[in-house]
Amino acid sequence: MHHMSPDEFRRHGRAVVDWIADYWEGLQHLPVTPGREPGATAALLPDTAPETGEPFDDLLADMDRVVVPGTVHWQHPGFLGYFPMTTSGPAVLAELLAAGLNTQGMLWSTSPAAAEIEARVSDWLAELMDLPESFRGNGVIQDTASTGVLLALIAARTRAERDGAGPYVVYTSEDGNACITKAARVLGIPDAHLRRVPVAAWTRAMDPADLAARIGADRAAGLTPLAVVATVGTTATTAVDPLDAIGVICREQGVWLHVDAAYAGVAAICPEMRWIHRGLDQADSYSTNPHKWLLTGLECSLTYFADPAPLHQAMRVTAAYLHDRGEARIDYQDWQIPLGKRFRALKLWFVLRAYGREGLQRHLREGIACAEELASWIEADERFELAAPHPFGLVCFRHRAGDGAGRELLARVNADRRLFLTSTESDGRFLLRIAAGGTATTSESLKAAWQRISQTADQVTTAADPV
Amino acid sequence: MHHMSPDEFRRHGRAVVDWIADYWEGLQHLPVTPGREPGATAALLPDTAPETGEPFDDLLADMDRVVVPGTVHWQHPGFLGYFPMTTSGPAVLAELLAAGLNTQGMLWSTSPAAAEIEARVSDWLAELMDLPESFRGNGVIQDTASTGVLLALIAARTRAERDGAGPYVVYTSEDGNACITKAARVLGIPDAHLRRVPVAAWTRAMDPADLAARIGADRAAGLTPLAVVATVGTTATTAVDPLDAIGVICREQGVWLHVDAAYAGVAAICPEMRWIHRGLDQADSYSTNPHKWLLTGLECSLTYFADPAPLHQAMRVTAAYLHDRGEARIDYQDWQIPLGKRFRALKLWFVLRAYGREGLQRHLREGIACAEELASWIEADERFELAAPHPFGLVCFRHRAGDGAGRELLARVNADRRLFLTSTESDGRFLLRIAAGGTATTSESLKAAWQRISQTADQVTTAADPV
Repeated sequence: MHHMSPDEFRRHGRAVVDWIADYWEGLQHLPVTPGREPGATAALLPDTAPETGEPFDDLLADMDRVVVPGTVHWQHPGFLGYFPMTTSGPAVLAELLAAGLNTQGMLWSTSPAAAEIEARVSDWLAELMDLPESFRGNGVIQDTASTGVLLALIAARTRAERDGAGPYVVYTSEDGNACITKAARVLGIPDAHLRRVPVAAWTRAMDPADLAARIGADRAAGLTPLAVVATVGTTATTAVDPLDAIGVICREQGVWLHVDAAYAGVAAICPEMRWIHRGLDQADSYSTNPHKWLLTGLECSLTYFADPAPLHQAMRVTAAYLHDRGEARIDYQDWQIPLGKRFRALKLWFVLRAYGREGLQRHLREGIACAEELASWIEADERFELAAPHPFGLVCFRHRAGDGAGRELLARVNADRRLFLTSTESDGRFLLRIAAGGTATTSESLKAAWQRISQTADQVTTAADPV
Repeated sequence: MHHMSPDEFRRHGRAVVDWIADYWEGLQHLPVTPGREPGATAALLPDTAPETGEPFDDLLADMDRVVVPGTVHWQHPGFLGYFPMTTSGPAVLAELLAAGLNTQGMLWSTSPAAAEIEARVSDWLAELMDLPESFRGNGVIQDTASTGVLLALIAARTRAERDGAGPYVVYTSEDGNACITKAARVLGIPDAHLRRVPVAAWTRAMDPADLAARIGADRAAGLTPLAVVATVGTTATTAVDPLDAIGVICREQGVWLHVDAAYAGVAAICPEMRWIHRGLDQADSYSTNPHKWLLTGLECSLTYFADPAPLHQAMRVTAAYLHDRGEARIDYQDWQIPLGKRFRALKLWFVLRAYGREGLQRHLREGIACAEELASWIEADERFELAAPHPFGLVCFRHRAGDGAGRELLARVNADRRLFLTSTESDGRFLLRIAAGGTATTSESLKAAWQRISQTADQVTTAADPV
């Protein structure tokens, strides 16, 4: 047995840094999705771990032999599916530093600098986004916005229990994220008590009148309306729910309002986008993921609480190994489910500093401008029609010949493996999605992508849907 | 705005690699804990993010100015508190590679290589530890063992609901981890329904007869015994609950058995330690954390299920963006709460290969041997007495003059900032803990540490407890 010495780490570390730089430089020449069948990667691996250690050079070589040919390249310029999950040099190197320090921040006392940097950068981001004052000082970094929703429901239940409460009901829109279903289930709230409120036809925004009616009906039926999860930028089409109207209803009804702005929230760093948060001052909690559009890499999700007391009440536990607490300290233990805590704040700190307000705004605006440009090409093509508003980096559109033609187009484009698009459904109809905003996706690469999609559309053989 | 170019990344990446190597090389000369007051790190940071981007060199310089002087150095040879959270060169560089790829493995189709490597290395670890056959093919990597307990309780509830169920009760020992309280609360199980089963005086192992009696009494009272969380290596003293006797009770009573082996489970890679898992074949789920003793760095926690079907039933959700599923694929989405999934398997793959079975065994045995050596010094010192068995890397001991003297000794040792110890309580009495097993903690460094502790004990002024 042999631990890698610092000098060996220097040597192998350089090789890894070069490997990543080479990977990024060569990414555009790789297929964006792998051609391997299920099981093909596993077939390259032995059934058991080796008896004796292998040289690091062999491990690194297997990145090219095993990993790269089996990977969907989320940083590829042709990756236009889902939402971009952006990263950056400063974020990647901050992850490296955090791994090297390998501290554990369950309490202030176990990692004081990490705790204070997390508190400070949470406030930096709140200021950049002009979040309501109530959220300042009350931010925490979690792995994903799925966890943010879960924590919000836990806090909501803790608050509701003060008054005694019946079976709980949670509300979100038809297009609210699947993680809301999961979070409700974790609390023991069955899918039947997760209300999917209808949305407006074009904007896909939640209908507040319908929400109010459902809350009233549920209360009359002896149920306890627990929480509304409104969305700023749905996964399907980036719809923005009307927070102002929803917030009024939640305040009147004493229902917790959580706002899931996982993808789109960071757009508010640009003042012209702050309309997305109109009414947010009425929310009890709010999540947004810098790891999607804000260059930090997975995982980095911020959740803010207007009043974190119910969360702390639910999460604070005592044990001999958690005793070293004190005033004027932030013990993130009380803000999360796991005891262990990685130093995720380091990469957010690095990214916010490396780009500055100006750089972040320019990056976000580039994504929005790319989407606008793309939308103009789609509008100018008589074979297609836009299917939803595109306030952020995502454009949803339809093949006018119908769903069959759209599905065929998607299959043909993706089969080529130079681009990767995803789809969604809206009112039972099939939509294609193109997500700009990735750091490798430029106006030029997007133009080339659209030309390819347009040419591929010429090959679509599916006849028009019967009218 | 300016994204770091690949060539800039090469340059800054080398600087970061060197920074980490320098940090590791110099670590022994730093104090292990910081001298800063709460707020002192925050005071070094501006109130807001900068308007324009800052050079990367300035960020890196702030590692030395802001971070290091405010950090508890978990990799320091004098860090003997909590449990070691070990990492290694291969793990750190795998984290760097994973950050550079920045893939997202919610489904097989979004990151096929990551999914297949995770499945394979989960089996590698199961084989290395000789885990029961039922767990093979059913492992998943989560952030921490706290999440493992939560998933186990979710799966247990899903299984229990098939038969209709009353208010749930969860059982663990007096020394079961605080994360069990948290997980139960998340499900809505109040602390009053978390039974803390008494433990034997010296071993601190759960009393199975008492467990059986409590389960019977709860059932008679109309409650539903949901799950027992047994521990292999408690956080307080590394007690090992008798899995065989507990397993028989759980099988008879139809109660889910989860085994929390967060710290100690990986010791079973050494055949002579496999006694810790006697009876594990009766367990429904099992967690262990390579990020503690097995060199992977935070976060890397394995959870295995004998039958993952109830977990999948609880976690599987549908959405347009989760549609691309298929047979012969592992969609880890169904194994976890968040939708997003980092490529944590990469570092486990690297570590298991870089060390091999032989290297892992040697590393674990060194930790155990260090603890044995330390225990012999403590036994030979008439001022102290051992306070619990030390089968792994942790030694718990007491000052014979009483709790006051023990507390004073701990405070004096830690005040010096060259060592960091933690304490616990057992039967209302104060114990000091010394945790070996860190990669920088050698037989020599531990000997020096003990000499320092022994010398510090000479300065203790607290009078013996009144008898």
